[in-house]
Amino acid sequence: MSKPEADQGGRFAYPGLDRVIHERARLSILTSLISHPDGLSFTDLKQLCALTDGNLSRHLQVLEEADLVGIVKGFDNRRPQTLCRISSSGRRRYSDYLAVLDQLLHDAAAMARPEIAEMSA
Amino acid sequence: MSKPEADQGGRFAYPGLDRVIHERARLSILTSLISHPDGLSFTDLKQLCALTDGNLSRHLQVLEEADLVGIVKGFDNRRPQTLCRISSSGRRRYSDYLAVLDQLLHDAAAMARPEIAEMSA
Repeated sequence: MSKPEADQGGRFAYPGLDRVIHERARLSILTSLISHPDGLSFTDLKQLCALTDGNLSRHLQVLEEADLVGIVKGFDNRRPQTLCRISSSGRRRYSDYLAVLDQLLHDAAAMARPEIAEMSA
Repeated sequence: MSKPEADQGGRFAYPGLDRVIHERARLSILTSLISHPDGLSFTDLKQLCALTDGNLSRHLQVLEEADLVGIVKGFDNRRPQTLCRISSSGRRRYSDYLAVLDQLLHDAAAMARPEIAEMSA
């Protein structure tokens, strides 16, 4: 059996996988918003993320309270519209989160090819 | 404002982010186990994932019920030991999950550099 080294405590804990961002619906929302820097309407966001009105509202509220997105009530051709945008803090934290995902993928890929893991050790 | 095309419904929904695997502690457990094909003791796993006894037990139970890991009670030098291994089905589903993560990272990277996204469209 492979024995982990003593200094490997928490080696696979990935504390950087921020729970506010990691939740699937919220990850979906943030990825949509990062790709639309000018913002997305509630309706477009709902469609891109395949979420119900209730779920999208609930998760947007969590993201807004965490200062990851900003929600602006406005008008589009005189019709009331909710516009959602990722905040600058959201952009930074989403980017930090992605770096951890990237690390996880590298870890998993290295494990699948132990000779490469040994080469890079 | 960027308007998503009609055929982009669910474009950022990532349904392949299987909730059983996506939960952070379970993702941590599976990444540890994929890297230790001979299995890990409960104690080593707890340390690698920085989890408490209670949390590790709870998440291992979820993973075992989903047929993603196998848990064998055995002995190590006459001391009782719980050995955890990723199952072949777990290996397959974890790999499918990673492919979706990889897609998400590519999506996010493309969005950060729209000229690249356009080149690959």
